[in-house]
Amino acid sequence: MTLKPLDDRVVVEPLTAEETTAGGIVLPDSAKEKPQRGTILAVGPGRLLDSGERSTLSVKIGDEVLFGKYGGTEIEVDGKEIKILRESDILAKVVS
Amino acid sequence: MTLKPLDDRVVVEPLTAEETTAGGIVLPDSAKEKPQRGTILAVGPGRLLDSGERSTLSVKIGDEVLFGKYGGTEIEVDGKEIKILRESDILAKVVS
Amino acid sequence: MTLKPLDDRVVVEPLTAEETTAGGIVLPDSAKEKPQRGTILAVGPGRLLDSGERSTLSVKIGDEVLFGKYGGTEIEVDGKEIKILRESDILAKVVS
Amino acid sequence: MTLKPLDDRVVVEPLTAEETTAGGIVLPDSAKEKPQRGTILAVGPGRLLDSGERSTLSVKIGDEVLFGKYGGTEIEVDGKEIKILRESDILAKVVS
Amino acid sequence: MTLKPLDDRVVVEPLTAEETTAGGIVLPDSAKEKPQRGTILAVGPGRLLDSGERSTLSVKIGDEVLFGKYGGTEIEVDGKEIKILRESDILAKVVS
Amino acid sequence: MTLKPLDDRVVVEPLTAEETTAGGIVLPDSAKEKPQRGTILAVGPGRLLDSGERSTLSVKIGDEVLFGKYGGTEIEVDGKEIKILRESDILAKVVS
Amino acid sequence: MTLKPLDDRVVVEPLTAEETTAGGIVLPDSAKEKPQRGTILAVGPGRLLDSGERSTLSVKIGDEVLFGKYGGTEIEVDGKEIKILRESDILAKVVS
Repeated sequence: MTLKPLDDRVVVEPLTAEETTAGGIVLPDSAKEKPQRGTILAVGPGRLLDSGERSTLSVKIGDEVLFGKYGGTEIEVDGKEIKILRESDILAKVVS
Repeated sequence: MTLKPLDDRVVVEPLTAEETTAGGIVLPDSAKEKPQRGTILAVGPGRLLDSGERSTLSVKIGDEVLFGKYGGTEIEVDGKEIKILRESDILAKVVS
Repeated sequence: MTLKPLDDRVVVEPLTAEETTAGGIVLPDSAKEKPQRGTILAVGPGRLLDSGERSTLSVKIGDEVLFGKYGGTEIEVDGKEIKILRESDILAKVVS
Repeated sequence: MTLKPLDDRVVVEPLTAEETTAGGIVLPDSAKEKPQRGTILAVGPGRLLDSGERSTLSVKIGDEVLFGKYGGTEIEVDGKEIKILRESDILAKVVS
Repeated sequence: MTLKPLDDRVVVEPLTAEETTAGGIVLPDSAKEKPQRGTILAVGPGRLLDSGERSTLSVKIGDEVLFGKYGGTEIEVDGKEIKILRESDILAKVVS
Repeated sequence: MTLKPLDDRVVVEPLTAEETTAGGIVLPDSAKEKPQRGTILAVGPGRLLDSGERSTLSVKIGDEVLFGKYGGTEIEVDGKEIKILRESDILAKVVS
Repeated sequence: MTLKPLDDRVVVEPLTAEETTAGGIVLPDSAKEKPQRGTILAVGPGRLLDSGERSTLSVKIGDEVLFGKYGGTEIEVDGKEIKILRESDILAKVVS
């Protein structure tokens, strides 16, 4: 079963805490609003511009990204816990 | 009796909790703001753009969609409990 | 005496609770923000667009519509209790 | 002495409660946010659009209008209590 | 010493309460948000539009105006208590 | 060491209270939100317009200006206490 | 491992308090909302304009900048504590 996000939304599978640390990024304990790291599973067609066209997303399937912890909606699909985010909730791509 | 939604609104018939689980999506207990799954019954003509034209909706009648639990308006029509949502409340299409 | 609404406003005569039920729509008791059903008595010329033109309303006199309960302004004209709404407060047209 | 409102503002002389009832509109007691009825005494040149032109007002001097009770600014000029409103505070024209 | 307001701001010298009454406008006691009357001392070049041009102000030096009591910034220049307002805080010009 | 402000920001060196009084402007005691007077030390390239061009600032290095007390960010550079403001926080230029 | 920020975001490595003082900028104790100084490590492709093009960032890798203390998201990458900011959170470039 597949999810096709609308507009500029993306489906992200978050890494668990252990994976995150192994990948070289340590999230400081003190910061409450720390970002999460994950992998893009699906991308939407882009946000509808005033011109009637759609913006091109800056991320693609397979990209590793950092995103704000409290953005988006959590859901469990086929046993995997995933998140549906807007592209604007993504802070940066991670290039290892 | 039929409902014709205005602007970019859609009429959705939500799946019951049992159907949702059978479909492969399990909503985690801990998350309070969990999305719902449903089927599109009717779609509006699209949002009015500044140009005077209307945007084309990304969903059509019969599509299965995930949508935020607290968006839209609940109403009971001919014994069916339905919801009237804006397209922006729809997170993703479900392709099984 | 007639009311001519401004901009994208419409004048609606709400149906009473009995009429609503007879028409096939039952509003669930649990939902506090339930929509109302009514008939359009008058429509405005449309919202002024940035281009200087006015949008065309999607409803016309005689249409049956569902609208949010808390939008608009109530007023009693010639013994009839009516409501003045903006078009954006109308959720859907009812086609019986 | 005359007032020339700026932008899309209008000067309105509200009818007293007795006049309002005589005119066929009765304001329900239960509604706290009930509209008022009055006569347009002066109109501004219109709101400045992004194009640099001004919108044409939908009301003119002498029109009878319904307007929200809490919009605008009250002032007493030459013994008459008047109100300065924006056009968007006007709900409808009254055609008797 | 002179003040040159920026954008669509104006410098206004408010009339004292006595002058206001003499001019024919009486502010009702009951209204807390009553407007003030004053004379324009200086005007800015106009608000910057999206086109890169500036809007033309609707008031000029010497105009008598009504303005909201709580808008703008009070300042004392060369012994005169003045106010710096945006044009949108001006309700109407007074033509005596 | 120099600061180059971004967008429509300016760097201002505020005058002390004594200088302000000597310059002919007295700030009334009763007003809590009184403006400050200062000299422009640096200006940004202008705000980015939708067209992709930048707005031209209305102030230049050396201008004396009045600005709101609570706008902007205070910082001490090379022993001087300065402020970084947006142009929209500047009320007026002072021409002595 | 590298971070590629999206839109108009930048990656900044903040200077420690000692470095900041050595650089000639002293942040006053009394001010709670004091800016921070840091070095740009990476820049995004620019904000998406309505025209579909992207704005050009005003800062580049290696620039020293002042930025608001509470903007952006903190993260620790390869042992360095960095911040991901939007360009609009940057107050000024520091030219030594």
